[in-house]
Amino acid sequence: MALILAINAGSSSLKFQLLDMPAEHLVTKGSFERIGLSDSIFTISFKSEKQQEIASISDHEVAVRILLEKLTELKIVHSLTEIEGVGHRVVHGGETFDDSALVNDEVIKKIEDLSELAPLHNPANLVGIRAFREVLPNVPEVVVFDTAFHQSMGSEAYLYSLPYDYYKQYGIRKYGFHGTSHKYVASRAAELLGRPSDQLRLISCHLGNGASITAVKGGKSIDTSMGFTPLAGLTMGTRSGDIDPALIPYIMDKTGMNATEVINVLNKKSGLLGLSGFSSDLRDIDKEAKRGNKRAKRAIDVFVERIQKYIGAYAAKMSGVDAIIFTAGIGEHSSMIRARVLQDLEFMGIDWDRELNKINGKEIMISTEKSPIKVLVIPTNEEVMIARDTMRLSKRHQEI
Amino acid sequence: MALILAINAGSSSLKFQLLDMPAEHLVTKGSFERIGLSDSIFTISFKSEKQQEIASISDHEVAVRILLEKLTELKIVHSLTEIEGVGHRVVHGGETFDDSALVNDEVIKKIEDLSELAPLHNPANLVGIRAFREVLPNVPEVVVFDTAFHQSMGSEAYLYSLPYDYYKQYGIRKYGFHGTSHKYVASRAAELLGRPSDQLRLISCHLGNGASITAVKGGKSIDTSMGFTPLAGLTMGTRSGDIDPALIPYIMDKTGMNATEVINVLNKKSGLLGLSGFSSDLRDIDKEAKRGNKRAKRAIDVFVERIQKYIGAYAAKMSGVDAIIFTAGIGEHSSMIRARVLQDLEFMGIDWDRELNKINGKEIMISTEKSPIKVLVIPTNEEVMIARDTMRLSKRHQEI
Repeated sequence: MALILAINAGSSSLKFQLLDMPAEHLVTKGSFERIGLSDSIFTISFKSEKQQEIASISDHEVAVRILLEKLTELKIVHSLTEIEGVGHRVVHGGETFDDSALVNDEVIKKIEDLSELAPLHNPANLVGIRAFREVLPNVPEVVVFDTAFHQSMGSEAYLYSLPYDYYKQYGIRKYGFHGTSHKYVASRAAELLGRPSDQLRLISCHLGNGASITAVKGGKSIDTSMGFTPLAGLTMGTRSGDIDPALIPYIMDKTGMNATEVINVLNKKSGLLGLSGFSSDLRDIDKEAKRGNKRAKRAIDVFVERIQKYIGAYAAKMSGVDAIIFTAGIGEHSSMIRARVLQDLEFMGIDWDRELNKINGKEIMISTEKSPIKVLVIPTNEEVMIARDTMRLSKRHQEI
Repeated sequence: MALILAINAGSSSLKFQLLDMPAEHLVTKGSFERIGLSDSIFTISFKSEKQQEIASISDHEVAVRILLEKLTELKIVHSLTEIEGVGHRVVHGGETFDDSALVNDEVIKKIEDLSELAPLHNPANLVGIRAFREVLPNVPEVVVFDTAFHQSMGSEAYLYSLPYDYYKQYGIRKYGFHGTSHKYVASRAAELLGRPSDQLRLISCHLGNGASITAVKGGKSIDTSMGFTPLAGLTMGTRSGDIDPALIPYIMDKTGMNATEVINVLNKKSGLLGLSGFSSDLRDIDKEAKRGNKRAKRAIDVFVERIQKYIGAYAAKMSGVDAIIFTAGIGEHSSMIRARVLQDLEFMGIDWDRELNKINGKEIMISTEKSPIKVLVIPTNEEVMIARDTMRLSKRHQEI
């Protein structure tokens, strides 16, 4: 077995999946939450069992040690040498990384330097990387960036219409996020359509609590709805997406908040939560809308409208589209949202099957045979992408 | 002759056109600049002559008196009683006005109340209104709002994904601007296409130093690119249009500016000026781009890309489009921009004539006979719209 650990480390958490490669089979997965507190929670699922332990876990390094002991104890691995690589999700690769990278001191330094662009995420991701370097010093580590897939955007897409010095001096541009997910579903779509990526124009709708839409032309991201930060673009669970920037000082003036506090409201109290007034979860909102709650209904209307406009914009940008992909929580599981989005877009050449669309959570084509534009639901799998890149880059490492 | 004065008053300026109605024939036009200073400039064009005078004009009321004296002196009118109405452009009508209105004390009070939404413009517009009330107390005055045409937008378009209270308490929503222009060209397009407005889906591109795109369905605005203020949407001469709102505190942090100063940069030093680094005027930029200036070329690329994405978004929103209209300075006069925008949109069903597109500044259809989507260039005429509404509402006034 060639085993790869896919890691997503936050400031007080660490999620993991162990994958058997190249079969891409999930062996085990779990998480540590509340690291650094006296009541840290360690969860691991193996075969059909789920174990949970509550204990004091002082830092990420301790968490990694516990994880590796557990893998041996549960006989998930016979020896830790079976782990051939550790892949880490890193949020921000800036303009430095247009691909995943094998970890070394230089790469760590660069990720540190990019922390200014992702002050909450990159340092937390680094804590996970360092913990594995300590505990498994001989296993190659690979970093996989949320932004890397979008580095293929042209300057007409990534430049804001701001003083150009802001780009040169401060790195102010569109970076885009969810790249690993968009790349995964785009590549899977090409397989399902039986056509080479480089001939396809795809619109990938990653609709989760965070949500973004990407235009993928010839296998490359050419535009995406998130921006300098993950706040821009679509209406999300708690994020506003695009607004008139002149609203920031207006809201400051009205509420007495400072600019950072206003952005905090835009990130955490807006989106579906702000519109509905009671939940950021589309399932709750849908339930209330069906009961006649007008604000819930309006929240869904806004959510759908923004998605449709981005699809239209990206179809124009690519001079057409071959397939539209729905992925992530809402994209995979809400047949209601997919139906709402698609019904107004039939004019584009979308013919879809109402019955097939009712199936949720599965990889499925919901467009009909005759539909010129295909519509696919593809469960995303960022961990498989991380494991693939980790395999690819650790092999290169071994060859060197 | 039934003469109508169409007035556009700013804080230190007053532009006027005198129109012969209902023929919509321009009799004379001109402007006062630098009102309140010792070297105010009064310009008036009549027949093929243009007169300019420099004098001290203390306030708008004095300007109005000078204007009326001049109209008699030049025998443009025999008697001031020939002026049957005065129409004023007012920037912000908020949610209060979805149509033009006959001026009375209540209307003036409402425009004052809306000044918070347009602190630079509404008070200046009111100065013009009050000056005419003083000097021509018996002539009906009408106010025509930039925002009124967009009041037909649905809540899915005008609501931002912000806490809903911000809408209820502070009036934070998309209002849209350039409404008088969009309404004029949309109505003119219906005439040129020989089809009733209520059957048409139009995308109106008002591309001037300020720029906005409107989706007009059944004669009504259902969405527009400007927002709470005229800053949002497209790349403009000096305005940024849409950016990630999280950039505001980031720019504040980097530059030491406060939020208002940052918005000032977004309004006055961004857009084509910010991208090119040397001009907000597309003609200058085009000239430099042709000489190989990369920043000039990039500025045009960004400008075009944003227009294309809005056209795509609004086509999706209306489930198709029957005609695209270009108007205002750039829309009417830049065959280069029209060509750049259209060439990537042919997939939508746009077939256009390269030769016809070379004609600038004229009302013309540049799509071919067989093109399912028509493309029109229509010189805008906000003053005619103001005069039409002034006629309509002052007549109603006389009937009462």
